[in-house]
Amino acid sequence: MQLGRVTGTLVSSRKEPLMEGMKFLVVRQIDADGGDTASYVVAVDAVGAGIGEVVMYASGSSARQTQLTKDKPCDAVIMGIVDTWEVDGETVFVK
Amino acid sequence: MQLGRVTGTLVSSRKEPLMEGMKFLVVRQIDADGGDTASYVVAVDAVGAGIGEVVMYASGSSARQTQLTKDKPCDAVIMGIVDTWEVDGETVFVK
Amino acid sequence: MQLGRVTGTLVSSRKEPLMEGMKFLVVRQIDADGGDTASYVVAVDAVGAGIGEVVMYASGSSARQTQLTKDKPCDAVIMGIVDTWEVDGETVFVK
Amino acid sequence: MQLGRVTGTLVSSRKEPLMEGMKFLVVRQIDADGGDTASYVVAVDAVGAGIGEVVMYASGSSARQTQLTKDKPCDAVIMGIVDTWEVDGETVFVK
Amino acid sequence: MQLGRVTGTLVSSRKEPLMEGMKFLVVRQIDADGGDTASYVVAVDAVGAGIGEVVMYASGSSARQTQLTKDKPCDAVIMGIVDTWEVDGETVFVK
Repeated sequence: MQLGRVTGTLVSSRKEPLMEGMKFLVVRQIDADGGDTASYVVAVDAVGAGIGEVVMYASGSSARQTQLTKDKPCDAVIMGIVDTWEVDGETVFVK
Repeated sequence: MQLGRVTGTLVSSRKEPLMEGMKFLVVRQIDADGGDTASYVVAVDAVGAGIGEVVMYASGSSARQTQLTKDKPCDAVIMGIVDTWEVDGETVFVK
Repeated sequence: MQLGRVTGTLVSSRKEPLMEGMKFLVVRQIDADGGDTASYVVAVDAVGAGIGEVVMYASGSSARQTQLTKDKPCDAVIMGIVDTWEVDGETVFVK
Repeated sequence: MQLGRVTGTLVSSRKEPLMEGMKFLVVRQIDADGGDTASYVVAVDAVGAGIGEVVMYASGSSARQTQLTKDKPCDAVIMGIVDTWEVDGETVFVK
Repeated sequence: MQLGRVTGTLVSSRKEPLMEGMKFLVVRQIDADGGDTASYVVAVDAVGAGIGEVVMYASGSSARQTQLTKDKPCDAVIMGIVDTWEVDGETVFVK
């Protein structure tokens, strides 16, 4: 999984019918120190994430393994909200 | 999903028979600020997108989860046309 | 899909038996302006492409959705020969 | 598979129910000489890896082929702890 | 598929049971001119490749389509040993 910060929202009214009712969030990928990178992804939200939260997202076919996204044309899903994250014995992030 | 701007079209008469009748669009990936990047992809259009529109596309096996692309050798599909897109509380894009 | 120019061939006599009889082509990826990039891929040819032709190829599991490559350990397949390709209203390529 | 060093842990209490009980480790990818790179991944631990250990991890749909991760929205799994690793006749790493 | 040179071996005694008995090789990716790049992958050997040989490997779910790797948490498999490889009419490599 990759880590990112939810930074925005996206509205798409004309879309593949299978995606009806899904919430699309803009997630900016963060580096190992918790800083923003230039990369982002639009992910379906399976856990009720809010703007500013640090999240884990799964990509590719694994993004279709939640109940919400099963058999949908979805290649990125937020599947966890991060509480704490430690690297090299130091706390990088606490919610 | 990734975001891109539809910038072109592509015609291929000699192709895998399973791809017969599909519309191929050239999609230039855009960054988190809405600017063009150097990356592009050729995607099958599942939603009737037009030149200049900002779209969401799904890649990999997820690109085969629309009715149009099921079981086809397609690894990128446009599955949504973007109406609005906000990042950090600011509107990056309005259709 | 990605676009590339067929630049070479590859022979492998000792290979996974499931790949017996397949033609392997070296495909150099091209950028949005039609110029060569440093990236390349070895792809199975499903459409009878020749050296110098501009082709579309599918990657990952989608590369196993042609009749030729079904259930084979193949992660890149040429599934279309490009006739014309337009970007921003200008013709980038005509066969 | 890619090689990485386990450098941290991650706690997520609000997550996709299918991921309940899994241990999430932060794995920093290492280069061919065993040095740290800037890339990292959050992987599910299927083998009981500890902080500091060098591990192999599988990505994408292959990350769902362990007993622990089957049919879960997981795109990275640690599936081996590295004992020794040799490149060009020299030992890069011994546990 | 990508091309690489087998440069090393890797031993992992504590691993996912499904991977028991597999040979792990360190493969350095090579560029279109046959030169080494900084990228490498650890791949399962399905064809009996030796150190120094130039090989083709498949990634992702396609890496699970050999008899050896079926339904295993393996995302890279060597599925061919390269005999010759030509680019732009010139022989880049002969075994």
